[in-house]
Amino acid sequence: MRDVAVVGIGMGDFGELWEKSLRTIWVESALAALTDAGVGEVDLITVGCMAPGLFVGQEHLASLLADELGMAGVPAARVESACASGGLALRTGFAEVASGLSDTVLVTGVEKMTDVDGADATYALGTAADQEWEGFHGITFPGLYAMLARIHMQRFGTTSEQLAAVAVKNHANGLLNPHAQYHLKVSIEDVLASTMVADPLRLLDCSPVTDGAAAMVLTTVERAKELAGDRPVVKITGSGLATDAITLANREDLSELGAVRKAAERAYEMAGRQPNDLHVVEVHDCFTIAEVMTTEAIGLFERGEGGPAAENGLTSLQGKIPVNTSGGLKSKGHPVGATGVAQAIEIVSQLRGEAGQRQVEGAEVGLAQNMGGSGGSSIVHIMEVA
Amino acid sequence: MRDVAVVGIGMGDFGELWEKSLRTIWVESALAALTDAGVGEVDLITVGCMAPGLFVGQEHLASLLADELGMAGVPAARVESACASGGLALRTGFAEVASGLSDTVLVTGVEKMTDVDGADATYALGTAADQEWEGFHGITFPGLYAMLARIHMQRFGTTSEQLAAVAVKNHANGLLNPHAQYHLKVSIEDVLASTMVADPLRLLDCSPVTDGAAAMVLTTVERAKELAGDRPVVKITGSGLATDAITLANREDLSELGAVRKAAERAYEMAGRQPNDLHVVEVHDCFTIAEVMTTEAIGLFERGEGGPAAENGLTSLQGKIPVNTSGGLKSKGHPVGATGVAQAIEIVSQLRGEAGQRQVEGAEVGLAQNMGGSGGSSIVHIMEVA
Repeated sequence: MRDVAVVGIGMGDFGELWEKSLRTIWVESALAALTDAGVGEVDLITVGCMAPGLFVGQEHLASLLADELGMAGVPAARVESACASGGLALRTGFAEVASGLSDTVLVTGVEKMTDVDGADATYALGTAADQEWEGFHGITFPGLYAMLARIHMQRFGTTSEQLAAVAVKNHANGLLNPHAQYHLKVSIEDVLASTMVADPLRLLDCSPVTDGAAAMVLTTVERAKELAGDRPVVKITGSGLATDAITLANREDLSELGAVRKAAERAYEMAGRQPNDLHVVEVHDCFTIAEVMTTEAIGLFERGEGGPAAENGLTSLQGKIPVNTSGGLKSKGHPVGATGVAQAIEIVSQLRGEAGQRQVEGAEVGLAQNMGGSGGSSIVHIMEVA
Repeated sequence: MRDVAVVGIGMGDFGELWEKSLRTIWVESALAALTDAGVGEVDLITVGCMAPGLFVGQEHLASLLADELGMAGVPAARVESACASGGLALRTGFAEVASGLSDTVLVTGVEKMTDVDGADATYALGTAADQEWEGFHGITFPGLYAMLARIHMQRFGTTSEQLAAVAVKNHANGLLNPHAQYHLKVSIEDVLASTMVADPLRLLDCSPVTDGAAAMVLTTVERAKELAGDRPVVKITGSGLATDAITLANREDLSELGAVRKAAERAYEMAGRQPNDLHVVEVHDCFTIAEVMTTEAIGLFERGEGGPAAENGLTSLQGKIPVNTSGGLKSKGHPVGATGVAQAIEIVSQLRGEAGQRQVEGAEVGLAQNMGGSGGSSIVHIMEVA
């Protein structure tokens, strides 16, 4: 297996981009990544996108986008694992370079979600749940995560204030990220006073509906060192993928996210790393409870300690292990197919020392954790300065 | 890069399977492949499926199906390239085993298309075309392929009778395939008398709407030899992937399928093979003109010679190079996400000498060519007896 590096990253602003199409935002991010890499040709393009058929009436997306980029002819593959589609695009590109089938891969994620009305967006997102056992009975994602929150609260004593602390931290980080959808300082009181969406989750516990795209260029570590010049080369040392029953009714234990735990274990094993080795982490905070549960599942904290850790500032930018320095899905926004790639981009920025005001000093090992549905799939990557 | 073999294949009947759900037909084919392989555990499941969000209201499909198979927890990835999604699932599994990231992969394809009304199925399939430049203006796939047919006729003199010969041959082969959707002998006259769909393509020039699933197990050649016992081991020696502009308006030359040519060239180069080495071939005959054009694009015949070749029996079961011995999409049926896997299964059956009444004697090298949209993507695999 060949060693694989990230040699270019690119993303535009996340938000409600009414004036731009899916094609436009994707091409902008792809060009930014290729320019950053100093690469003009690639052997493969991977596209993570959850539901372009439902959101914008377009499947066959990877070929379409290759052509939009002026690269008609270049092999291109769309992958989907609901909100973990971006992470899967990264995994797919990693396997191609690692195997030697491709030398250079453009890994991308995109979703255009604001071009449909609210009910249609909720339906499209709902197809990430088990439709026969969940969706067709009326439950949507805030409700599914609210049930996970209730169980976590009952079993571990997690509080609404602890969940609010996640939102406060991520919005504080988002203020420092020019690409974030929201530049909005919020307080614990703001979160607790926001509209109830699905008890106990309030509006400020939820990530938004977002348009956005993100891209990165992978190649061999050898070629990356030639291309990078004086900049640090970031190597992907671990890649772990796992699933769980996507319907909550079939899960063994609703107080932990089994797919996240398994994906992280696989990534740690491949990288020869453990949670204590990490300097910076991005997790999939589609709801505040998700950040609490994922930080436990990837082993940063014992089970039940995720809430107190957030409340005590352990995961803040100045804390013991900074989590979601990008602002996370909560503040940066959550264009579902793009999220996994954007998470990896934040880790690369941190490891390169290019994260600006949100830079974690001396960061050399980072982890990005992407998740589909209510934890039905998860993909974890570990990256390190080569 | 490690050598990769197919060690198990499985598929059920293709057709209008009103009494079975997507989950059911997928699990049946997956269990058949695992049983054929003698394998109980896999490291990854890949699922090729074009538009489950539009056809059955369900995304996040790979995780869902892993759980349905009793394999919740196992990594699973859905891939999509319109009607080439099955071929892409095979490519993705191939890369994982070749790289060493996975030792054993369950490669699958599935589509459940008959659960929506005809207009909705046409819309869903239409999302494989460029919606902004083609779909939104009203054209659907029979119309797109009819334009390709007109150009081929004008440039090379291809006739309706030659197109009909493709349908006659594939229905004759389908009579010998117990899994085929249609067991129906048709004549040249039948095809030429059938209802006009999009001039010059008539009903019997078109592949049908189909429910179906197909699965295969990949592993290293080394392990395959241990598992196979006395049965021949089939090795994947070439894998080629390419795209083209998906809108016809952006193509350089409408009289050939550029993505197919490029994907085939890549596969031949990897395998160290050329068209003359092939003993049996499956191509993507979604319309009769597609078989004419793909047999040219993969180099079996010179440009413009695909029609006469079909008419003169060169591609029949007893011909110089048998094409679509399975019955092809035309007669076997075309559950779009499953098609690419089913094509590869036919080649494996032939190379194992297990194709029954449609066996090509002495077949040792075969090729499967899968295609998305009107040729916006193509994936070609070459397989050989190890």
